[in-house]
Amino acid sequence: MRDSERTRTKILEAAFDVIHEQGFRSSSINDILAKTGLTQGAFFHYFATKNDLGYALVDELLKDIILDRWTRPLAAYKNPVKGIITRFRKLVEATSEEGLALGCPLNNLTQEMSSIDPIFRDKLGKVLRAWIDETERYLERAQTEGYLRPDVNVSQIAEFIVTMEEGSGAIVKNLRDKNVYWSLYETFRRFMESLST
Amino acid sequence: MRDSERTRTKILEAAFDVIHEQGFRSSSINDILAKTGLTQGAFFHYFATKNDLGYALVDELLKDIILDRWTRPLAAYKNPVKGIITRFRKLVEATSEEGLALGCPLNNLTQEMSSIDPIFRDKLGKVLRAWIDETERYLERAQTEGYLRPDVNVSQIAEFIVTMEEGSGAIVKNLRDKNVYWSLYETFRRFMESLST
Repeated sequence: MRDSERTRTKILEAAFDVIHEQGFRSSSINDILAKTGLTQGAFFHYFATKNDLGYALVDELLKDIILDRWTRPLAAYKNPVKGIITRFRKLVEATSEEGLALGCPLNNLTQEMSSIDPIFRDKLGKVLRAWIDETERYLERAQTEGYLRPDVNVSQIAEFIVTMEEGSGAIVKNLRDKNVYWSLYETFRRFMESLST
Repeated sequence: MRDSERTRTKILEAAFDVIHEQGFRSSSINDILAKTGLTQGAFFHYFATKNDLGYALVDELLKDIILDRWTRPLAAYKNPVKGIITRFRKLVEATSEEGLALGCPLNNLTQEMSSIDPIFRDKLGKVLRAWIDETERYLERAQTEGYLRPDVNVSQIAEFIVTMEEGSGAIVKNLRDKNVYWSLYETFRRFMESLST
């Protein structure tokens, strides 16, 4: 990585943390710079506006964060249905009180920005679509290899799974109660097992 | 209703619309007043700060909106499980493109405010809890009257149902695709039927 790319990435990573905590509109360029030690001049060398930074954040960082969390690890499982259940469990296990409170960065940014900014909406929609499509790809594999019932509509179930994965984070962010996260996992697990062969 | 109460309600209703469109922090007291024809003096007679208005909004308006939408209509159904399925379908049917874009006011406010303001968090958590508890009460009735399988854990399933109801709104707000809403409803319906006797 060249130095200039490294600096750009450093800004994006600092911005991600600040925006995840405070929301996009309440985060100032100065808040972000304070985390990097860079000057405003350096910032504007890479991003013309705060919005441009936000768009780059979704395309270059948020998408990877979401897929690394939910779908890419599924490649390691022989039975993708079991992989989906296990990933959910591991994510509940790994969620700290702070993580519970901050919620999912994709959901936060969507609720805040997608109804007021069509560029954000488009980019955030693509991240969600990628998450659903990758989930569907693993369900297809599960069906082909005999782990998933042949009558299951994989496209519909992929949308349902991602809604539960994303919706659970929103609910526990509101209730601040990890027991509810476990309870949701439990029902999710039974639902997935009901679709298994 | 006395005149002063009527004015207070008028401010709350105008605030609800503005905040639902723009988010809480981006809505100014002037934006809200512009919808009511009242002066700043009148506003501050009822609410000491914008935050006080926000808290009253959650306690006095948002809670009723959520329960009127999701749980109170269940009283009209002999079989509450069928009621829960039918309500979801009717809400998907009734959702306009604009409604799809704006999303659920409870989810929006939670994602925006609950990690940065403990009073909002507490009040929003109570609304969500009331929604889950009322759902659970109807599931209990369904179980007692033989519509729901006796082995169903009504508390767990109530949390799962509300997560799907709330999560679906968040997903379609992001994707802007009513077909996905229908697809989620379809899987929700089958899930609920799998719990029925």
